[in-house]
Amino acid sequence: MQSASDGYVRNTERYGWQVRAKQDVRYTVQFYDGLFSHANTVLLRAGIGQTPACQRRFVVIDSRVLDLYGWEIEAFFRANRVQFRFLPLDTTEPEKTVENVLRVVRGLDEFGVNRRSDPLIAIGGGVLLDVAGFAASLYRRGLPYIRVPTTLMGLIDAGIGIKTGVNFDGHKNRIGTYFAPQRAYLDIHFLRTVNDRHVANGIAEIIKIAIIKDIRLFNLLEENVDTLIADRFAGRSAYREILVRATVGMLEELANNLWEHVLERVVDYGHTFSPRLEMAALPELLHGEAVAIDMALSLVLAAQRDLLSTHELSRALALLDAYGLPTHHAQCDEELLIAGLAESTSHRDGLQRVPLSRGLGNSVFVNDLTRLEIRSAASYLSARAAGALLARPAAAARTAEPQISAVPSYAF
Amino acid sequence: MQSASDGYVRNTERYGWQVRAKQDVRYTVQFYDGLFSHANTVLLRAGIGQTPACQRRFVVIDSRVLDLYGWEIEAFFRANRVQFRFLPLDTTEPEKTVENVLRVVRGLDEFGVNRRSDPLIAIGGGVLLDVAGFAASLYRRGLPYIRVPTTLMGLIDAGIGIKTGVNFDGHKNRIGTYFAPQRAYLDIHFLRTVNDRHVANGIAEIIKIAIIKDIRLFNLLEENVDTLIADRFAGRSAYREILVRATVGMLEELANNLWEHVLERVVDYGHTFSPRLEMAALPELLHGEAVAIDMALSLVLAAQRDLLSTHELSRALALLDAYGLPTHHAQCDEELLIAGLAESTSHRDGLQRVPLSRGLGNSVFVNDLTRLEIRSAASYLSARAAGALLARPAAAARTAEPQISAVPSYAF
Repeated sequence: MQSASDGYVRNTERYGWQVRAKQDVRYTVQFYDGLFSHANTVLLRAGIGQTPACQRRFVVIDSRVLDLYGWEIEAFFRANRVQFRFLPLDTTEPEKTVENVLRVVRGLDEFGVNRRSDPLIAIGGGVLLDVAGFAASLYRRGLPYIRVPTTLMGLIDAGIGIKTGVNFDGHKNRIGTYFAPQRAYLDIHFLRTVNDRHVANGIAEIIKIAIIKDIRLFNLLEENVDTLIADRFAGRSAYREILVRATVGMLEELANNLWEHVLERVVDYGHTFSPRLEMAALPELLHGEAVAIDMALSLVLAAQRDLLSTHELSRALALLDAYGLPTHHAQCDEELLIAGLAESTSHRDGLQRVPLSRGLGNSVFVNDLTRLEIRSAASYLSARAAGALLARPAAAARTAEPQISAVPSYAF
Repeated sequence: MQSASDGYVRNTERYGWQVRAKQDVRYTVQFYDGLFSHANTVLLRAGIGQTPACQRRFVVIDSRVLDLYGWEIEAFFRANRVQFRFLPLDTTEPEKTVENVLRVVRGLDEFGVNRRSDPLIAIGGGVLLDVAGFAASLYRRGLPYIRVPTTLMGLIDAGIGIKTGVNFDGHKNRIGTYFAPQRAYLDIHFLRTVNDRHVANGIAEIIKIAIIKDIRLFNLLEENVDTLIADRFAGRSAYREILVRATVGMLEELANNLWEHVLERVVDYGHTFSPRLEMAALPELLHGEAVAIDMALSLVLAAQRDLLSTHELSRALALLDAYGLPTHHAQCDEELLIAGLAESTSHRDGLQRVPLSRGLGNSVFVNDLTRLEIRSAASYLSARAAGALLARPAAAARTAEPQISAVPSYAF
C-alpha cells in the first residue's frame, strides 16, 4: 500500500521551484494456512479502499496452479459471491516478457476494474508474480494487488519484495518497477504440488540468506538436509523456523533499502554472475540453480582471499550438493563470467560491489576482483565437478591484473 | 530525484510482518534561457550521483526539434566533451505507444549507461516527455532523467509533473508510472519554432488553471489575447507572469497529491470527457483542443446548475474562441460523452468526482451528473457552434435520471 505525506512547492532559485513529497509505503507479509477455505474472507478484505457494492477480482494465475487448485479457488469466490475472471499464464523464465505483461493489461481492460477497490490477485511462482506485479504497477499507473506465491522461490524471495519486471533483449529483469503489493499471503500448503527440483530452487535463496547473515539458519539447513525437501516444509517446528528466518532475514534487508538507493546489497550475493549465465543457458537453468553456481564461485573467490577457511568452503559447497543444487555449468567459462561481472558493475553504477562471505553468516563487499581470480575460481569448480579431489584453492594474483570495470559496450 | 528514509520490519500479527518505508521525492522545475549555450554546464551537472570519469548522455529527442536545434545541441555536447547519442522520435499522439517506449529501452541497451550517473535527457513536447519518461522509469527499474520541454504544453503541463505513460488498446494513458525527473528545464526560446495551433494547444491548459483557481491569470489571458500567441510569450512581463502562475499553480496541485491518492483533482478539469473524445477523433484533435471542448461542456454544465453566471459563461467561452480553441466537435455526441464519463468514473474508483467551476477562479466537485444534463449541455454547444445566438442554457432536470456510475463493460 502506498499513501502520501503532505508535499509542497518551494521557490528555491530565480524562477526555480522545488517540489518535495514523501510516499509512505506499507505492506504486510503473512504466513497463512488455508487461504481459500470458504469461511475465510481475509483475502477479500485486503487491498480495498472502501467496501465496494460489488466485489470483483481479476486473478492472474499460473496455468499449472489453475489445473491443480482451480476448483478450490473457484468455489471460494463463488461461496463469497465475488465476480472473478482467471487469466492463466505459462510462467517459465522464457515467458517473462513484455507481451505477457500486456496480456494482463488487456485482460484488465476487458474485465473492467475500478482504480482502487478491485485489487488484482496474482497466484503463482516468482516469474508469474513479477509479470503480474509489473502489469498491476502500470495499469492506470498503479492498481492495488495481492501476491499469493505458490512455489518456494515465491514464498521466500520473489513474493515478499516490491520489485516487478520482465526480461528484455536477452537481459534479465532489464525493465520493471518498484511497486509494493497490498499484502503477500504465504501458504505453504501449495508446496505439496511443487516438484523436488523446484523446491531445491527455492532453497538456493534460503542458503544465500544463511551464508551472508545467519549462521543459525545455515546450521538448521544442514541438520534437516535429509527430510526438508521430502516433507515440503510441513510438520516440524525447525522447518517453520527456517521459513521465518529466511523470510524475515530477507525483509530486513529490503525494508531498509526498498528502492535500492544503496547499491551495496548483501542480498545480491549469488546474483553477480548468475543473471548472464541464467539468460545464456535459458531455459535449462532455474533461477535458483544459476544463483547456486554463482554462490559456489563466490565461495571459492572468498576462500582464495582467505575470507573463508577450507572447512567453511567445504561445508558450504557440500550444502549446495546435498540439496541437489549445481555448483558448475558448462557455459560458465571465464568470458561469460567476466561479461556478467561487467554487466553487474554497470547495474551497480560503475563499481563492482560484489558481496563475498566472510566466514559463514557474514559478508563483505569487494570492488577489485580480477580476471585471474575469476579464472582460478572457475577452474577449481570445473575440476571439482569433474570429480577431482581438491585441496584448498590457491590464492590468485590480484595486483598484476587490470580491475574489471563498468560495462558499456565499448568497455571491453 | 528519489531517496529513502529508514525503513523497518515489524512483527504485527502471528506469523505476519509489516514492511514500512518512506520514499522522499524531490525535483526542481526551473525557467532557464539558453540551456544549450556552451559555457553553461547546468544541464550536465543535473542528475549525477557522483562525478563520473566520462560523461555519457542518451538523448531522446523529437525529430522535428532535432532538425531545428540538432546542430546547437550537438555543438553543446562536443564543446563539453560529452559522449552522446540521439534517438529521434516522431511524437504525435498516435505514436504514444509501448513500441516507442521499447525503442528507447533498446537504444539505452545499445548505448550502455550506468545505473545512476548517466541520466537520460528528453527533449520535446508532451508526448515525447511521457514516452521517454516512461522508458526511463522502467529501465533497470528507474534511470535518472531530465526533462527539456520544447512546446507550450510541455512547458506548463506535461513537462513539470511526475506522470509518464502511453496509450494502449484505444485508451488514453492506460499504462504508465509516477516517476519524478531530476529536473525540468523550461526554456521558452523553443517556442519560436512552435506553430500557432500548438501554442494555442498549450494555452488550453493555462485557461484550465485560470478557470479552476486563478482569476488574476484569467484576466491576464484576456488582456493579452491579441499578442500572446504571436509573441510566443517573449518580451513582456505579463507573459512571464502568465507562465509562472500557470506553472506554479499546477505544481501546487501536484505536490500535495503527487501519486494521486486523492482522486478529487481540480487539475482534472477538462479531463473527464476529453480522453475518450481525443482517442475517438485521433489524430484530428490535439490534447489541448479536446480539453477545450471538455471545458466548454463543463462551463455549460456549471451554468445549468447556477454555479456560473451567464456573463461568466460568455467570458470563458469567448476566451476559448479568442485563442482559436474549439468548443465543439462532430463526434462529441451524447453517447460518447456518457461513455467518457463512465470511463473517468471507473478511473476515479466508482465516483464521478467531476470538477466544475464555481464562478471563475474557483471550483467544486460533483458526483451526480445525469444524462439529461449532459444532453442539454451538448446541444447548447452544438447550436452555438452552428452560429445560433443563445440565451442562458436552461437548467436540466437532475432527479428523474439515474446517476451515471462506474464503468465496467457490463455497466452500460
